[in-house]
Amino acid sequence: MSEPTEPTGASERRDSAMEVGRLTAAEVAAVLSRVRERAPLVHCMTNIVVAGFTANVLLAAGASPAMVENQEESAQFAAVADALLVNLGTLSAERARAMRAATASAQAAGTPWVLDPVAVGPLAFRTRLAADLLEQGPAVVRGNPSEVLSLAGAAGTGRGVDSTANSQDAMQAAYDLAARTGSVVAVSGVIDYITDGATVLQVRTGHPLMTRVTGVGCALGALVAACCAVEESALVAATAATTVLTVAGEVAAAASTGPGSFAVALLDTLAALDETTIAAHPGIG
Amino acid sequence: MSEPTEPTGASERRDSAMEVGRLTAAEVAAVLSRVRERAPLVHCMTNIVVAGFTANVLLAAGASPAMVENQEESAQFAAVADALLVNLGTLSAERARAMRAATASAQAAGTPWVLDPVAVGPLAFRTRLAADLLEQGPAVVRGNPSEVLSLAGAAGTGRGVDSTANSQDAMQAAYDLAARTGSVVAVSGVIDYITDGATVLQVRTGHPLMTRVTGVGCALGALVAACCAVEESALVAATAATTVLTVAGEVAAAASTGPGSFAVALLDTLAALDETTIAAHPGIG
Amino acid sequence: MSEPTEPTGASERRDSAMEVGRLTAAEVAAVLSRVRERAPLVHCMTNIVVAGFTANVLLAAGASPAMVENQEESAQFAAVADALLVNLGTLSAERARAMRAATASAQAAGTPWVLDPVAVGPLAFRTRLAADLLEQGPAVVRGNPSEVLSLAGAAGTGRGVDSTANSQDAMQAAYDLAARTGSVVAVSGVIDYITDGATVLQVRTGHPLMTRVTGVGCALGALVAACCAVEESALVAATAATTVLTVAGEVAAAASTGPGSFAVALLDTLAALDETTIAAHPGIG
Repeated sequence: MSEPTEPTGASERRDSAMEVGRLTAAEVAAVLSRVRERAPLVHCMTNIVVAGFTANVLLAAGASPAMVENQEESAQFAAVADALLVNLGTLSAERARAMRAATASAQAAGTPWVLDPVAVGPLAFRTRLAADLLEQGPAVVRGNPSEVLSLAGAAGTGRGVDSTANSQDAMQAAYDLAARTGSVVAVSGVIDYITDGATVLQVRTGHPLMTRVTGVGCALGALVAACCAVEESALVAATAATTVLTVAGEVAAAASTGPGSFAVALLDTLAALDETTIAAHPGIG
Repeated sequence: MSEPTEPTGASERRDSAMEVGRLTAAEVAAVLSRVRERAPLVHCMTNIVVAGFTANVLLAAGASPAMVENQEESAQFAAVADALLVNLGTLSAERARAMRAATASAQAAGTPWVLDPVAVGPLAFRTRLAADLLEQGPAVVRGNPSEVLSLAGAAGTGRGVDSTANSQDAMQAAYDLAARTGSVVAVSGVIDYITDGATVLQVRTGHPLMTRVTGVGCALGALVAACCAVEESALVAATAATTVLTVAGEVAAAASTGPGSFAVALLDTLAALDETTIAAHPGIG
Repeated sequence: MSEPTEPTGASERRDSAMEVGRLTAAEVAAVLSRVRERAPLVHCMTNIVVAGFTANVLLAAGASPAMVENQEESAQFAAVADALLVNLGTLSAERARAMRAATASAQAAGTPWVLDPVAVGPLAFRTRLAADLLEQGPAVVRGNPSEVLSLAGAAGTGRGVDSTANSQDAMQAAYDLAARTGSVVAVSGVIDYITDGATVLQVRTGHPLMTRVTGVGCALGALVAACCAVEESALVAATAATTVLTVAGEVAAAASTGPGSFAVALLDTLAALDETTIAAHPGIG
């Protein structure tokens, strides 16, 4: 997260112990501005639980979502979209085939894409698929600690969609996974870590209500994809997206009386978010 | 849109240049009243992104939604429902087969049905399906300008679900398409145009926030279907539905602080909408 | 529903005519507390309309939802989840196969599961599936009166997802169905009846706005599953879940201006619900 008193441009200041840096508010705001200016077309292949909320988060942030998930069309669409999200929730055999076709097409066309390996580890079918997709070179892999540990080859630690590990446990695994694959790896948690296998950035904003509404993590994957469409560095894109959503989460939580009103306020806040608000929420940095 | 100072019944007054008429507030309110009295059963075959919001819009308006989309049941259900919506978003091969079966059944049973050709043009699979379904005689085709231009045979102009053309560009294409097919064609935009190939009606109410929430256009297709169940003239039904939703959009926007609260207010407003409110929002008419 | 002036533990007091008892507020609150403490993992196989809302209701109540619906994974997941929901809305042939696999696995593993037979009766494909699934021994069958009458073998009385019968009509059928199958049967309505074929419990709380938002009944099925994970008596679990949701519905309705704000308030209320609030809403008991 940003530190408002810091000069801009210092995006890779390191904390001594873990070499963990942060983006400035200006750097985050610059990415968000470009999303709003260019309204990137984000091809979302995502699950039935969160599809509507994901589309609304993208629209609130200024991007243009399009959900195309069948085998016949997904390869065609991945080649013309500005970014692609592949989220493994509510997977089916047909969707799995379509995802393989879409990621191959994205790879060929140079469309940046994000892999959200929902619930890999305990479930064999999607764990195999995730391993295969990882070979297709996603720009970013975004998951919770259990999912990242599982992808990195550690013993499965999750039971379902919720993580039973914390993000610090997974940071080393994320670092190694990124170094090995060339994909940026983003681990969600109380502190979010994003790494390209050389640098680690952290985001310390956020609010527990973000875990009490379905789809916030999945929507983050989509927002990462939107940012990848307008920012060449996937490390910066993923960190900016995480900062934008978690700062909006803090602001929305302050205006909410429970998870229902929080989800509503999150969309209102995202649509209105500006650099001043981002700079005012420095987290624990 | 209605003009409150105008006597009722004058539904086809023409503007000089384009022969564009409007419905009165009383005509719109009469259709809405019948929806509330009869609670028509609307069989929705729609996409995973908007299914929940679509159902909530229909419930708020007084209709009874039922989503049935598999091949085994859709033909059976289309014959007993009061109206059918076929929306091509998040299409799959199985859904496409079910849609062909349902529309054939609706046609045979005399169930009015609405085609919402989401994202036709850039995507070959659904564009072929839309062309075939058009032959089955939908009561109404509802789309954005790009989709209507594409269906009418113009070069595809959209990139995804958002239109890159405006509704005035598409009005002539809509008119020709309606004249050729016998279906009413409704084009959404800042101004909505609805035509049966002889008369053109316009709706000038609405608000930009309607494009910042996913599913508003798709829900309009469902509301058109609900109105077709209680109003013999598909031209009047589609225009009344468009007026109801866009007036509700204006009222809701005034009570909202962003896209999240707008979506909530839209449902509250729809449920409470009456003729006085409709008459008080005459648009630019 | 609870009667606050009554001593706790008297859960099977009978009304003279129908031998209908109720749970106390303390009994209901005890089940809700255990859901919050243990956060049971609820495997939901449900429909595209309500999946997001269902997940949010479970999260608001303190449970942990996970939607897994493909054939490859559902059997595996049903064996490790704490409870399973099988909801027949927006059925497909693939989902039907996955449901058969999941319920067989749940049965073998001793995972309690809930059958929500959405729209059985008028639709042959799902009516056959529901009859087969009933043989697999669900802990609870939750439906509207038409669905329960249909499952019990009466002539189909519904047209779609809404019931055309009332819950009192269906009470005897529910009682007989429960006695015959060994499953608890819960019938929703202005008064909810829940029976194991020996005892009938009733819940008299609730609000008409609960029928103006899609997915409230479906979410109740999921909440019943969550309660079954923490309460051995399926009769008590189903009644507690029904009481929790209908009391939350009464409280939320008082804070709402229409169906949109009601759905939001329902989630906020559920997350904050405590025994005092439950005790303050005794219904007509």
